[in-house]
Amino acid sequence: MEKFSITDKTEITRLPKRGVYDKETVYSILDEAMFCTLAYVRDGQPFQIPTGFCRIDNKLYIHGSVGSFYMRELAEKKLPVCISVTFMDGLVLARSAFHHSVNYRSVVVFSEATKVEDQGELYTVLEVFTNKLQPGRWDDVRKPDAGEWKATMVLSFDIQEASAKVRTGGPKDDDDDYNLDIWAGVVPLKIERKEPIPDDVLKPGIAFPDYLK
Amino acid sequence: MEKFSITDKTEITRLPKRGVYDKETVYSILDEAMFCTLAYVRDGQPFQIPTGFCRIDNKLYIHGSVGSFYMRELAEKKLPVCISVTFMDGLVLARSAFHHSVNYRSVVVFSEATKVEDQGELYTVLEVFTNKLQPGRWDDVRKPDAGEWKATMVLSFDIQEASAKVRTGGPKDDDDDYNLDIWAGVVPLKIERKEPIPDDVLKPGIAFPDYLK
Repeated sequence: MEKFSITDKTEITRLPKRGVYDKETVYSILDEAMFCTLAYVRDGQPFQIPTGFCRIDNKLYIHGSVGSFYMRELAEKKLPVCISVTFMDGLVLARSAFHHSVNYRSVVVFSEATKVEDQGELYTVLEVFTNKLQPGRWDDVRKPDAGEWKATMVLSFDIQEASAKVRTGGPKDDDDDYNLDIWAGVVPLKIERKEPIPDDVLKPGIAFPDYLK
Repeated sequence: MEKFSITDKTEITRLPKRGVYDKETVYSILDEAMFCTLAYVRDGQPFQIPTGFCRIDNKLYIHGSVGSFYMRELAEKKLPVCISVTFMDGLVLARSAFHHSVNYRSVVVFSEATKVEDQGELYTVLEVFTNKLQPGRWDDVRKPDAGEWKATMVLSFDIQEASAKVRTGGPKDDDDDYNLDIWAGVVPLKIERKEPIPDDVLKPGIAFPDYLK
């Protein structure tokens, strides 16, 4: 199994047994996540931007307007960035307040931005991005015209350093506490897609797409 | 309606109409969020930590082990931090690829850490934190003993600067595209609590708590 190297920046020092460095796990968490938070530094001050993204091979991609100040800044100044995604998969209810926890999967990536100039790469990214949001969608929609392509900026981030941190399973209580008359267990949390809501001005007679069923 | 002042750091410059500065909206998004990502800077490099938190009045609180290096560092060096939470509430499927979007609510807070030393405040924070995770839980569990209190560090963050960014509603397409034979609308996303899973070694005869029903 291929792994990311453990570095000063990515080594999990708190609860190291929860650290995961294999690429398969890191990629699968990234691919399931609908958005990331991107952190960067300006004048010593940290900033965070939540944004959609997709992964292709060992690169993450974000997109935005060519007018986006922060995106231009990231690419032009080669600012170091930290990108993270987190899923909270469950509330872990222990018998003691102290041992309450959560089940989660998180990934932290360190990289820097490169502006994507290649038109083929740009097109592929937008297709992957759209189909990540909604599988099957790209083939169904009006594709970007020349003006829209020109208005779109895409940045790539080579996944130079990365680690995941994962907790699964039930509560771990102190030995003495297992005998207490307190319910313990896990409340699973799940992000669900609900029934799609058609646009108010949807053209009459348009079939509901198979990929949304 | 009380508002946070708009500052250089919190002004929404991209799509400013989505910017929201009233405290009620900012607080309600923070209170619904089960975790935040906290960004800080070490040697010019941004780092992010996903962590649970709660809000009391105009302060955010996180907790962890007294051994947590980053928490000690935040408090001792008074490092500037950026804290964010994000909900993705829906996929906005427009007729054109270009106008695809997402409905979301996000908050970004700028602050710095103060270590909570007051025992009363510490106790209140842990109670609010636990009941935020699972309403009703605190009264039901074994409370921290002296050693557990000693092992717990709580940091507070005064919400000095904050803004929210919110998108709601359906797709906005170019005029010419409304006549295309393409389905458009919103796929709502929702974080759901599923059926609780009892601990494998749950003591027999323990009633399922009302607050989990």
